[in-house]
Amino acid sequence: MRTILINTGTELLLGDVLNTHLRFLAQEIFPLGLRIDRQITVPDGEAIRDAIEESPKAAEIVFITGGLGPTTDDITREITAELLGLKLEHDPAILRAIQERAARRGFRLTDRIARQADVPEGATVLPNENGSAPGLYLPLNIKAPHLFLLPGPPRELHPMFRNSVMPILRTIVPNKSVTRRRTYRVAGMGESLVEEAIGERLVAIPGIELGYCARPGEVDLRIIGDESVLDQADAIITAGLGAAVFSRDGGSLEEAVVKLLREKKQTLAVAESCTGGALAHRITNVPGASAVFLAGYVTYSNEAKNGMLGIDPRLISEYGAVSEEVAQAMAESARTKSGATFALATTGIAAPGDGTSEKPVGTVFVALADGGAATLVRKFYFPDDRPIFKELTTQAALEMLRRAIPA
Amino acid sequence: MRTILINTGTELLLGDVLNTHLRFLAQEIFPLGLRIDRQITVPDGEAIRDAIEESPKAAEIVFITGGLGPTTDDITREITAELLGLKLEHDPAILRAIQERAARRGFRLTDRIARQADVPEGATVLPNENGSAPGLYLPLNIKAPHLFLLPGPPRELHPMFRNSVMPILRTIVPNKSVTRRRTYRVAGMGESLVEEAIGERLVAIPGIELGYCARPGEVDLRIIGDESVLDQADAIITAGLGAAVFSRDGGSLEEAVVKLLREKKQTLAVAESCTGGALAHRITNVPGASAVFLAGYVTYSNEAKNGMLGIDPRLISEYGAVSEEVAQAMAESARTKSGATFALATTGIAAPGDGTSEKPVGTVFVALADGGAATLVRKFYFPDDRPIFKELTTQAALEMLRRAIPA
Repeated sequence: MRTILINTGTELLLGDVLNTHLRFLAQEIFPLGLRIDRQITVPDGEAIRDAIEESPKAAEIVFITGGLGPTTDDITREITAELLGLKLEHDPAILRAIQERAARRGFRLTDRIARQADVPEGATVLPNENGSAPGLYLPLNIKAPHLFLLPGPPRELHPMFRNSVMPILRTIVPNKSVTRRRTYRVAGMGESLVEEAIGERLVAIPGIELGYCARPGEVDLRIIGDESVLDQADAIITAGLGAAVFSRDGGSLEEAVVKLLREKKQTLAVAESCTGGALAHRITNVPGASAVFLAGYVTYSNEAKNGMLGIDPRLISEYGAVSEEVAQAMAESARTKSGATFALATTGIAAPGDGTSEKPVGTVFVALADGGAATLVRKFYFPDDRPIFKELTTQAALEMLRRAIPA
Repeated sequence: MRTILINTGTELLLGDVLNTHLRFLAQEIFPLGLRIDRQITVPDGEAIRDAIEESPKAAEIVFITGGLGPTTDDITREITAELLGLKLEHDPAILRAIQERAARRGFRLTDRIARQADVPEGATVLPNENGSAPGLYLPLNIKAPHLFLLPGPPRELHPMFRNSVMPILRTIVPNKSVTRRRTYRVAGMGESLVEEAIGERLVAIPGIELGYCARPGEVDLRIIGDESVLDQADAIITAGLGAAVFSRDGGSLEEAVVKLLREKKQTLAVAESCTGGALAHRITNVPGASAVFLAGYVTYSNEAKNGMLGIDPRLISEYGAVSEEVAQAMAESARTKSGATFALATTGIAAPGDGTSEKPVGTVFVALADGGAATLVRKFYFPDDRPIFKELTTQAALEMLRRAIPA
C-alpha cells in the first residue's frame, strides 16, 4: 500500500528542529510490510493545503504530522476539514480529558486549548497520553482511503502511534507480507571494502534488496528479502566479514558491548578526558547497563586527573595530558579504583588552538585496562568537529573493548 | 528564490538513518535570505528520476543529496546526467585526488571508486575534504537554473557546503534581503502559557512572522522580520518573559550556563547517577567548557557513590539511593572534592521495574550545592522513556544552575 508522510512545520524547514518523524514511523510500520514511499516537509499555514492537494493520487495511506497544537500557527485540523468538506464538531469529552490531565500535572490552561476539542465529522479520535491535542483518523475521505492527523512533538506522537494508529493499520493492511529485513553493523572497515568483501556474492542472491550506509566509525549493511534470501545472505556475511560485524539486528555498538559484558558477568568503568562524559552516556543509554557499568570518571582538568584518579602531575608534565602514558595510567587507575573487570580511558585534543605540530587537533589516545600485564593503548586521528570527534572516539573505545571481551 | 531540497536514500525512508540535511542546509542558507520551501525524501534508484522530473517548475535552486558514493546503489550522478542530456566525462584529476587522500589516511581503494571521477559536461566540481565523491554544480540546465548534487554523509556534506556551495550561492542570490531572525528559548513554561503572556502583543507587530515550538523542557519562540520588528518583539518578550528566556540567539541551555560561569569566573562539577554521564556530555559539548567544568563523577552503582564520593552506605540504606538526602550528599561531596564553585547531582529511577508506589519510575531528585548553608534539592517526575528522561533531567539541572548563578 503506497504510503506518504507529510510533515508540517516551519521550524523543520528553518532548521530549528530536527525531523525525527520519518525514522520513527518507518521503523514502526515496516513489520506490517509497509514503507514510507515518499516524505515531504512543508511550512505551517497554506502550504499544508498544497501538500494535501498535490499528494499522489495513488497514495493509500497518508500521515500528516504537526499543526494540531494550541498556538495560532497550528491550523492542520481546520485546513484538512475544509479541504475534505467536513464540518468540525466540538467534543466535550476531549476538553474534559485535557482539563483533567492539566489538573493532574499542575498545569494551568488557557482559552486557546478548547480548539483542540474540535473533531471533523466521521473522524476517530486518537487519545494523546503526553499532550493536549488528540490525533484524528479520517477514513474513506475524498483525498486518500486512510488519512491520519498526528501531533508534531515526538513524545506525543510515539505513544499515540503505537497505541492507537498501529491497531488501525493492522486492520487495513493485508496480512500476506513475508518480507523481512536485517541490518548488520560493521566496525573498522570502509564502505567500499565491505562491498568488495561480500558485495558481488550478495547481489547474486535472487530477490535480495541490498543497501550500504556509511556512518561515523561504521558501515551499516541492510538486507531485505524473504527468509531464504536472509539465510543465504547471512552465510555470506558471516564468512566474509567475521568479527567485524558487531550487530545483526541494527543494535548499537554500546548495546553489543553491554550484552557481551552481561553474558560474561564482567564489569566496566570509564575515565574520560576529551569525550567528557559521552562514553558513559552512550553506555548508560542501554537498558540494563547498571548490571555492568560501575563508574565513570570525567576528568576534564589535570587537577581532576590527579584528584579523582591519582595521576601523577609529573607524568602529565613530562608526556602531556594527551599521551599514551596518561591514557594508560587513567585506564589502570579507573579499573583499580572501581574494581571493574575492564576500564576504558580517553584523552585527546578536541579544541582548535590546543593542537601542536606533533599532536595536531584530532589526536586522541584510547586505553583499555583489563588487569593483564599490558594495557592496550591505541592512537587515533579524528580531525573533525567536536560532536563527530566525540562520536568517533567513543566508537573506537567501545570497539576496542568489544574485541577484547573473551568469546 | 524558490529552493527545493531532495534527499535520496532508502536508508532514510526505512528509518535506519536520521535525516539531518534539512536542518543543516536551512541554517546555512538563511543568512542569504534563502529558505527551503519544500523538502522531499525518495528512495535510491529510479525514484530519484521521478523526484527531479516532478520538482516544481518554479524552483530556482535545487539541492540533491546522496547517491554519489562508490556502491552499486549510488546512481544519482548517472540519472541526473541522463535526465539533463549531459555526457559524463572522466576527470583524471579527481581520481588522483581520491588516490592521494586514501594514501594519506592509509585506506585501500577498490576499482569501484573510479566511477566517482565521472563529471557531467559543463559541471563545476566541488571538492570533498572528508570523502572520495566530489559534489557537482550544474548551472543553467533544463530542469532548474541552479542544480547541486551533494554527498549524503554529513561529515562530507558540511565542509563542502560551507567551502564550495556557499560562495556560489552568494553570487546567485540578489543581495537585498533585510529579513532577520531571532530564536528565543524559554525554560520552565509551557507553550500555551508563553503565548498567553506575549502572543497577542507580538502578532500585533506589522510584518512579524512568529512561531512556537515545544521541546523537552523548553519552548522555542521564533521571530522573523526586519530590524524594527525584531526590536519591538524583543521589548515585549523581555518584559513578558523575563528571566525565563535563557537564550536570545537559539543557543542551548548548556551554552548559556557555560557562558555565565565563564563571565563570573566560576566553576562546576557534576555527580550523576540516573543521567549516567549525559549532564557532563552536554556541558563538554560547549566549546570552551574546559575553562569552567572541572570534574564529573558518574556514580551509577551504590559502591561508586561510596568509593568516588564517600556517600555513607547507611544514608543509602535509610533513605534509598533515590532520595533528597542522597542527592544532597552527592552534590556537596562533588563540590568539596573537586573544589568547584557549584556542583549538580542527579539521582532518579529511569528503569521500568525499579519503581515503587512511593517513588514510581520517573521520580528524580536534582541537587545544587554552592557552598552555602542550604543545598537546593528539587524533586521532579518525568515518566518518559530513557532518552527523554535523561534530556528532561539534565535540562532541569542546568536550569536550576542557571537561575542560581548571581547576575
